Amino acid sequence: MNRTVMCSNLGIEKCSLRSHTCGELCWSHVDEEVTLCGWVQYLRQDLFVILRDFSGLVQILIPQDESKSELKNAFLGLTVESVIMVKGRVRRRPEGQENKKMSTGEIEVCAESMEVLNTCRKLPFEIKEFVKKSEVLRMQYRYLDLRSPRMQYNLRLRSQMVMKMREFLCNLHGFVDVETPTLFKRTPGGAKEFVVPTGDPGKFYSLPQSPQQFKQLLMVAGIDRYFQLARCYRDEGSKPDRQPEFTQVDIEISFVDQAGVMSLIEGLIHYSWPEDKGQMNVPFPSMTYEEAMRDYGVDKPDTRFGMKLVDVITAFQGTQIEFIKDALLKPGGCIQAICVPEGTVRTESVDSDSNVPTVYRLLSDTAKQQLLQMAQANAGDLIFITAGPLENVRPLLGKLRLQCAELLECYGVPVRDPSVFHFLWVVDFPLFLPKEDDPEMLESAHHPFTAPVPEDAHLLYTQPHKVRGQHYDLVLNGCEIGGGSIRIHNASQQLYILDTILKEDPSLLSHLLEALDSGAPPHGGIALGESVHEVLKRQQSK
Amino acid sequence: MNRTVMCSNLGIEKCSLRSHTCGELCWSHVDEEVTLCGWVQYLRQDLFVILRDFSGLVQILIPQDESKSELKNAFLGLTVESVIMVKGRVRRRPEGQENKKMSTGEIEVCAESMEVLNTCRKLPFEIKEFVKKSEVLRMQYRYLDLRSPRMQYNLRLRSQMVMKMREFLCNLHGFVDVETPTLFKRTPGGAKEFVVPTGDPGKFYSLPQSPQQFKQLLMVAGIDRYFQLARCYRDEGSKPDRQPEFTQVDIEISFVDQAGVMSLIEGLIHYSWPEDKGQMNVPFPSMTYEEAMRDYGVDKPDTRFGMKLVDVITAFQGTQIEFIKDALLKPGGCIQAICVPEGTVRTESVDSDSNVPTVYRLLSDTAKQQLLQMAQANAGDLIFITAGPLENVRPLLGKLRLQCAELLECYGVPVRDPSVFHFLWVVDFPLFLPKEDDPEMLESAHHPFTAPVPEDAHLLYTQPHKVRGQHYDLVLNGCEIGGGSIRIHNASQQLYILDTILKEDPSLLSHLLEALDSGAPPHGGIALGESVHEVLKRQQSK
Repeated sequence: MNRTVMCSNLGIEKCSLRSHTCGELCWSHVDEEVTLCGWVQYLRQDLFVILRDFSGLVQILIPQDESKSELKNAFLGLTVESVIMVKGRVRRRPEGQENKKMSTGEIEVCAESMEVLNTCRKLPFEIKEFVKKSEVLRMQYRYLDLRSPRMQYNLRLRSQMVMKMREFLCNLHGFVDVETPTLFKRTPGGAKEFVVPTGDPGKFYSLPQSPQQFKQLLMVAGIDRYFQLARCYRDEGSKPDRQPEFTQVDIEISFVDQAGVMSLIEGLIHYSWPEDKGQMNVPFPSMTYEEAMRDYGVDKPDTRFGMKLVDVITAFQGTQIEFIKDALLKPGGCIQAICVPEGTVRTESVDSDSNVPTVYRLLSDTAKQQLLQMAQANAGDLIFITAGPLENVRPLLGKLRLQCAELLECYGVPVRDPSVFHFLWVVDFPLFLPKEDDPEMLESAHHPFTAPVPEDAHLLYTQPHKVRGQHYDLVLNGCEIGGGSIRIHNASQQLYILDTILKEDPSLLSHLLEALDSGAPPHGGIALGESVHEVLKRQQSK
Repeated sequence: MNRTVMCSNLGIEKCSLRSHTCGELCWSHVDEEVTLCGWVQYLRQDLFVILRDFSGLVQILIPQDESKSELKNAFLGLTVESVIMVKGRVRRRPEGQENKKMSTGEIEVCAESMEVLNTCRKLPFEIKEFVKKSEVLRMQYRYLDLRSPRMQYNLRLRSQMVMKMREFLCNLHGFVDVETPTLFKRTPGGAKEFVVPTGDPGKFYSLPQSPQQFKQLLMVAGIDRYFQLARCYRDEGSKPDRQPEFTQVDIEISFVDQAGVMSLIEGLIHYSWPEDKGQMNVPFPSMTYEEAMRDYGVDKPDTRFGMKLVDVITAFQGTQIEFIKDALLKPGGCIQAICVPEGTVRTESVDSDSNVPTVYRLLSDTAKQQLLQMAQANAGDLIFITAGPLENVRPLLGKLRLQCAELLECYGVPVRDPSVFHFLWVVDFPLFLPKEDDPEMLESAHHPFTAPVPEDAHLLYTQPHKVRGQHYDLVLNGCEIGGGSIRIHNASQQLYILDTILKEDPSLLSHLLEALDSGAPPHGGIALGESVHEVLKRQQSK
């Protein structure tokens, strides 16, 4: 065997049958002997084979000389997507035959020999057409789907971005990559978990929803800075942005405050941001939960466009419109609006005068003026008005706002720049929310380990519903891509919240309570979801 | 909030409550104001608190001044392992009070203020004693166990070594880190798999034993170079070196041969080798399976010491010793020996003349001489002789050899240097072995995807039991730490092996056969097990 040690200064091809990759060849290789391995992309005019590997395409010149008819025939007999090894010499393409669209378009390789490494049977579809095919077919022939440039780009982008994240955390900031178990005990509360039967009848492992408890215990263990690309499981069926198994960048830090975690994450994303996605600025803007709900009607606002919610009660002061009067009289009653620029011009439903909504026609001229001014509406804009309890009005207008943006984009009105990335922190969430099925009871807005905002801590004992949590969500273009918190490190505070406020059985978490009592440092962390990559991929596909 | 962006050039402490870590302080910090966070290791003479964080220990001087009696009392009231934040000024220790054994022993910190971040209840054991306690107790209080310097070292060593491996693969050699699913279909053959019930009654996922099929499909997909730190599952109960879930460094490469994979792995291990483990040399020596069995009686020889198996048949030519004669007459009959240096001196059982084994006494003087010479035995050495079929004799002496080494080490005879790492490739394994329960049938020595050695491929159709596989095991100090092979990339060869030789149902692998027929490149790879770290940890604990 011909053995060469791979040292760090040797290139990619030292342990390969090839001497070069297809995509790297350029004029500087002219006159070099090369050995290439790859797939037959297509044959052209019986003269050329276009050869593909992960790095790109290169044109192979089939010899036309009579003495090489055997080699020529071998080339002409190739089926598309067959795997070959070609030896040949690089030459500059004849003048006028360069292909500017091809990165190797200045050169071609004159084949001197060729070996068929594997023959490809007839494929169900052409590779380049594949991404247009149905999801089911793409999944069935996943190995063909992944040959497309887009899928190759996606997989490589993910690998590189994750690697940069690891460098930042591990090499630059002293984080320890710790793998936590996935076959473990059930976590109380949270999502439905997959179970794994053991050999012991009636005994099951659970697959974890997240390593939340493990990472807190690692902080108690003095690891100081933990991270993991953690596989998580939720038995909740697949949705486009949620699958039964997914990976999160899981981080936990000791002796840190909320600002510290947020700064670290900004540094992390800044460091790992792909170059081809353009400039990204840090720090990210930050917004309270209350501001997000007030202005956007949602806790993960897409801040790439306006159409903010506005309170238009002034225009309806003393209104005689019955259903609005009624709505305003009820507890939390309000009247709010969003203004859709060019909304009447672009949508067909409200372009005739007869369709102008009744509410507007019922207003006095002064009120009309007030409304238009408050909504900052111009001619051709569309105003949606909603009256009702605040907790209904906000989410409703929030959804309407997003739907309008989508609708306008369908009509060709640019609303959101697809090349732009708006990162946003949302902070000051309530620590508890009324239970949906029993509004007298409280449940954790996120999870029961989130610490209260220090200045609100005394309210735990008197008005727990008013306590804000030290929770922070990271939002990108309207998608929640991460969430975290400073955790409770005091055993008695944790016990009080579990037992007295949430009415949960603290014995299920006795191991955690015991750990908090054994010298737990103040700590906090975050989990960044796969959705970062999802957002990148979505942007790219537009 | 005080927000500072973490940039790559900022140090570890920028998003932390502390200004420095305990362990980093030295004379160059003298006169600096520092803020430290950590655990109370112990109090000394009511004068000092020894503070610990992940980086090490530092001595805090408790103020003795009357005006600071409150602070002094707060210090004196601390329980061991409580978590505190101390502000103070670094000073050089008074002359003669330096502690050479402590890396921060030149300095101490004069406390100016102290905050108790968390109080520690009385612990079941002292942290430094913990590693001596029972496994069960260590697992129950894992967060205390991990506070010990040894466990901290182990976790950080693993994290750093894995990071170096990623750098080598991803940054230097163009590998793509791809996460493969863990909730998937059952793999035919192999170990018992864990199942995960789905919502659909009677339908189950399986947790994979390894990503073997996924990585082969990734090669068919043109990923070219894949790696993953892959979580694997085997439902086989826990053993000291095998747990139900474990992680392997999983690698697969297209357009590569056996020498290429081996070189890459040598480069990988060389690059990621921990500095404090001393020099390591590449390339690793390599040995055929036949040589390993012949000389060491095992396919993963510990080459740190001799005591090789020797054939001593010459000394017994024409012997009249009945049971040896019998053994030699049977098919494969042989007589072999190992020589244990100083074996009679150190072991009690054979130190009197009456105990010298009968076989030796039955030999003629010439035969005795021959035996001693063949075994290269000196006075005081012990020779073990075994007669029987070759396939029994070798493993028996192989085990005996290891047991002798352990026994001698127990008696204080140095046999294996615990600071030495002997890497070794074992190659040229048989592709098939007779089935244990039906020796007329063949089964794969490793798995059915291993390609035959090219020059043996024709034997597949005539004498399959003689075919060697392109399989390679990596052995370290007698532990198998990795194994891999060049895979079959030809669909009809794969089908022939599954169907005709192994008599397995090829329809269970129809997806793989179809993929091989869709332009599969030649490919091969390896999986390195957790046992690398195990070996390192074991060496360290000696």
